[in-house]
Amino acid sequence: MDKKEIARLVEALGSKKIGMYRKDFLLTWEKSRDELDATFLAADALRAMREAGLSPRVWDSGIAVSNFRDNSTRTRFSFASACDLLGLYVQDLDEGKSQIAHGETVRETANMISFLSEAIGIRDDMYLGEGDKYQREVGKALDEGVAAGVLPDRPTVVNLQSDIDHPTQSMADFLHLAHHFGGLDKLKGKKIAMSWAYSPSYGKPLSVPQGVIGLASRLGMEIVLAHPEGYGLIPEVVELSRRQARESGGSFSQVASMEEAFAGADIVYPKSWAPYEVMQQRVPLLHANDLSGLKELERKCLESNARWKGWECDEAKMRLTKNGEALYMHCLPADITDVSCKAGEVAAKVFDKYRDDTYREASYKPYIIAAMILLGKAKDPAATLGRLLERGTPRSAL
Amino acid sequence: MDKKEIARLVEALGSKKIGMYRKDFLLTWEKSRDELDATFLAADALRAMREAGLSPRVWDSGIAVSNFRDNSTRTRFSFASACDLLGLYVQDLDEGKSQIAHGETVRETANMISFLSEAIGIRDDMYLGEGDKYQREVGKALDEGVAAGVLPDRPTVVNLQSDIDHPTQSMADFLHLAHHFGGLDKLKGKKIAMSWAYSPSYGKPLSVPQGVIGLASRLGMEIVLAHPEGYGLIPEVVELSRRQARESGGSFSQVASMEEAFAGADIVYPKSWAPYEVMQQRVPLLHANDLSGLKELERKCLESNARWKGWECDEAKMRLTKNGEALYMHCLPADITDVSCKAGEVAAKVFDKYRDDTYREASYKPYIIAAMILLGKAKDPAATLGRLLERGTPRSAL
Amino acid sequence: MDKKEIARLVEALGSKKIGMYRKDFLLTWEKSRDELDATFLAADALRAMREAGLSPRVWDSGIAVSNFRDNSTRTRFSFASACDLLGLYVQDLDEGKSQIAHGETVRETANMISFLSEAIGIRDDMYLGEGDKYQREVGKALDEGVAAGVLPDRPTVVNLQSDIDHPTQSMADFLHLAHHFGGLDKLKGKKIAMSWAYSPSYGKPLSVPQGVIGLASRLGMEIVLAHPEGYGLIPEVVELSRRQARESGGSFSQVASMEEAFAGADIVYPKSWAPYEVMQQRVPLLHANDLSGLKELERKCLESNARWKGWECDEAKMRLTKNGEALYMHCLPADITDVSCKAGEVAAKVFDKYRDDTYREASYKPYIIAAMILLGKAKDPAATLGRLLERGTPRSAL
Repeated sequence: MDKKEIARLVEALGSKKIGMYRKDFLLTWEKSRDELDATFLAADALRAMREAGLSPRVWDSGIAVSNFRDNSTRTRFSFASACDLLGLYVQDLDEGKSQIAHGETVRETANMISFLSEAIGIRDDMYLGEGDKYQREVGKALDEGVAAGVLPDRPTVVNLQSDIDHPTQSMADFLHLAHHFGGLDKLKGKKIAMSWAYSPSYGKPLSVPQGVIGLASRLGMEIVLAHPEGYGLIPEVVELSRRQARESGGSFSQVASMEEAFAGADIVYPKSWAPYEVMQQRVPLLHANDLSGLKELERKCLESNARWKGWECDEAKMRLTKNGEALYMHCLPADITDVSCKAGEVAAKVFDKYRDDTYREASYKPYIIAAMILLGKAKDPAATLGRLLERGTPRSAL
Repeated sequence: MDKKEIARLVEALGSKKIGMYRKDFLLTWEKSRDELDATFLAADALRAMREAGLSPRVWDSGIAVSNFRDNSTRTRFSFASACDLLGLYVQDLDEGKSQIAHGETVRETANMISFLSEAIGIRDDMYLGEGDKYQREVGKALDEGVAAGVLPDRPTVVNLQSDIDHPTQSMADFLHLAHHFGGLDKLKGKKIAMSWAYSPSYGKPLSVPQGVIGLASRLGMEIVLAHPEGYGLIPEVVELSRRQARESGGSFSQVASMEEAFAGADIVYPKSWAPYEVMQQRVPLLHANDLSGLKELERKCLESNARWKGWECDEAKMRLTKNGEALYMHCLPADITDVSCKAGEVAAKVFDKYRDDTYREASYKPYIIAAMILLGKAKDPAATLGRLLERGTPRSAL
Repeated sequence: MDKKEIARLVEALGSKKIGMYRKDFLLTWEKSRDELDATFLAADALRAMREAGLSPRVWDSGIAVSNFRDNSTRTRFSFASACDLLGLYVQDLDEGKSQIAHGETVRETANMISFLSEAIGIRDDMYLGEGDKYQREVGKALDEGVAAGVLPDRPTVVNLQSDIDHPTQSMADFLHLAHHFGGLDKLKGKKIAMSWAYSPSYGKPLSVPQGVIGLASRLGMEIVLAHPEGYGLIPEVVELSRRQARESGGSFSQVASMEEAFAGADIVYPKSWAPYEVMQQRVPLLHANDLSGLKELERKCLESNARWKGWECDEAKMRLTKNGEALYMHCLPADITDVSCKAGEVAAKVFDKYRDDTYREASYKPYIIAAMILLGKAKDPAATLGRLLERGTPRSAL
């Protein structure tokens, strides 16, 4: 992409009505359609600049805080890459994994880490009813710190995965779809199957499928959600997606087999998650720090999973999709049958065919995160990007 | 603050007679009054530049080493923020927490980490008689490395808390006081109560109260040190503070109750620390790596503390202070009664009233650290800051 | 060195015929003599620029991945310093120390960490037959990622120590020798004794001695390799060194005593390593995660070592070297008799005499690493360095 084309992206961004300045990015469904579009446009512009050899560095110095209450190589690298791209230096906040801080501690820590900070990325996805709440508590503490004149500026909080949503994942997923199908508007009317899949590894969070249906339903897509009985998502998120699908001119339905979901689908997203009831039972055990109780629950969860080994995305099921050629998606790492496990979410032949697509899908995440930070910090992000373009600093002296 | 006002700070800095170049910042009482003033001025100038949107970046590349032999979220963030502000990249040196290196190992490590380093921040506060000694050993190794032509330049060592002093804390504390009371000179004659307070959590280091009396006594303040019997500080530091207070036109006295200390005080600093005897007994146990001995000592220490639960900074005691309106200070986190513990250092109502003040107090630390680094590395720091001001690079493209 | 002299180094670099662009630096013997020379020249130029106060920063933003499957303070700092010097931000990849990833996991991880990465440093030296293999697997995955259009650019892999070679160490060692003896060409005909030495600490990898003989044999040196029976290196590497020595006009011989090796030597490199058989036995135990088996093997290894306590580099043996003044080398930390252990690799008096030399030896490593990264990333590295010189950005505002 040349400078002129990038300038057109920036111009399009400038035409969006957004109110993201000094706000956090926690749930896609709290953002207007213009705000989602602005995020996609900013991500595309930042990527295009970098790939054209132009530096998108916004800050000369500044801290970005990375707060992972959960292991993550991929999201950690995406966050670090995004921050570095903008000129921010990542400092890890390690509060200990098993402990949920509240009240005074959150208020104080949020201020103490923010005197010179521009962004705070938080991943907290294992505690149903906790992750999103914690992120809001941090945001509130920051607002108060700014109001009291303690903080010189409001760092923006980016949800790197909560119990409810995983917006950096879902936004990257749909930016990938937009590029794959030739534009965001091309997704209208496309059928996407968000399906549970079997995994022997562990009880995974609900935020990925919730993020996918919560965002697909904004774009006029035909959504089919499939899972075995007992594997439902948070009911409020399902209801919200149903309503949003209706409002955006799409549809939302639920079925009880992967085959049914895949029939005629343009896109399939087969992925394991833990039963909702297990997620609920986990919370009091976690609060009580009951490790043997958690272990026993995990054992039951995997035992329950084992009844549904047929929920594998294999070649036969892929043939049911539109022209047998639906786009396969996954947030990675996938549990691949005969590769990473004996029986898993996806057959090796299917995964092999789509490997590069899933890598490409992941490649959008750093830019989505960078866009979220930029939009939370810039009063007029199009003007900021315009200045960077005009400045034209090369990213390297190579 | 506009550029002209910042330039006046830099000019004032230029008028100080200092010899900090290629030296370390270990104890405030090793620095002349001009050097302390220069540090405050540089911190104010760096903060003002950043808040005016001007980049105070000094280095285009360079390493800062962070050596924490003790957990610390706050000081870690302060150090990282300070280094990033100046353009230094922080690299953690993790030598293992339980092990004290000496001799060959210190000499070698100090050189190995310093080939491209500009600053080394060390926190080592749990071993009475060890922390300060270790920091000097590092400094000596660096001097030898420079003399031998092994190191291209002398990194400056910043004491991020030793067994004796905590200069980044005390300097931040008093810069806060200077801003609160309208100038450093306004502190002359003010009464500050440095008082022990009850805590159920653990036996805390002596460096904070020692740092406070060691610095207050340079500024002509009326110091009252209060603690239960057996909770004395290092005798040499108390003697030094007494002498310094006399020399600076202030006073130093010791009392045995928080109430007495608070009477008519302008400033109160109620904070827990471990009995001096416990700190002394800790050392041989640490050397012997006697974990059960340490645990037993800690148990006794907390048992001993429990006799002094009345040493809480509550509303009644605050009413004894000047107009009942003394400024409350704390290095954070405070043990707040009914919030972080059942009975602690401070009543919730008192802490609530002064929360923002304590946050503001903490906000000076990154700038104090940055100033210490700058003054250890710049031959003529006023000229360097002048160049940065003239350069006028914006800190961000926002 | 002034700008003109640096320009001459860059010019000399430009005259070398090299094909390192988009390639990895894994083994010195895969590189042509011109490529080795180019690496030395680039390292010298980068160091000279920094020491002249000129910024050698190549990137405005960019990630460098540090993947240490083994503890290392020194190499970690060297890598971080090198990356920071070039403008890259280091992000640690911690895959867990005991686990060897292969196949799908390596392919995926290599891509996931590389979307915005320029360099990947890998240290994996404990598993005979694994470290080098793993590094090649990463390189292959990156090639495929670039070919598939998943990665915008090819990050360069730098071997920070494998089971076979330790090129950042050996290249730094020989750059030190070049400076010590007045030029790389002066090394031709010099006698270097690479000798096993006694250590009580642990069974050390073979990569340092292998790296030394593998590189010395390119430079026309007279190499003598000495070790007790059973302490041989990988046979293929010994054979290769023998052949290379012949081809470069030097010689290669093996002896069974340190004394014999030292006789008339210009350079001595006495250093401990584990018996080859122990290294071989380690692999299946590591794969089986057999910790008690590993412990038992280690016990036997040290027991076996103890038979060879006479293999200490002491003053008597040093007197056997050329004029009793051979240059002593070590990759550090050395096991120093009566300092770090009761009996070790080197006598305290010998080490004392050469301490600064060993520090100087180590000081080249950051620049060697930076040179390797630059040569893997720049199509025309001389042109890039020329631009940096011409740009003339000062490294600091001091």
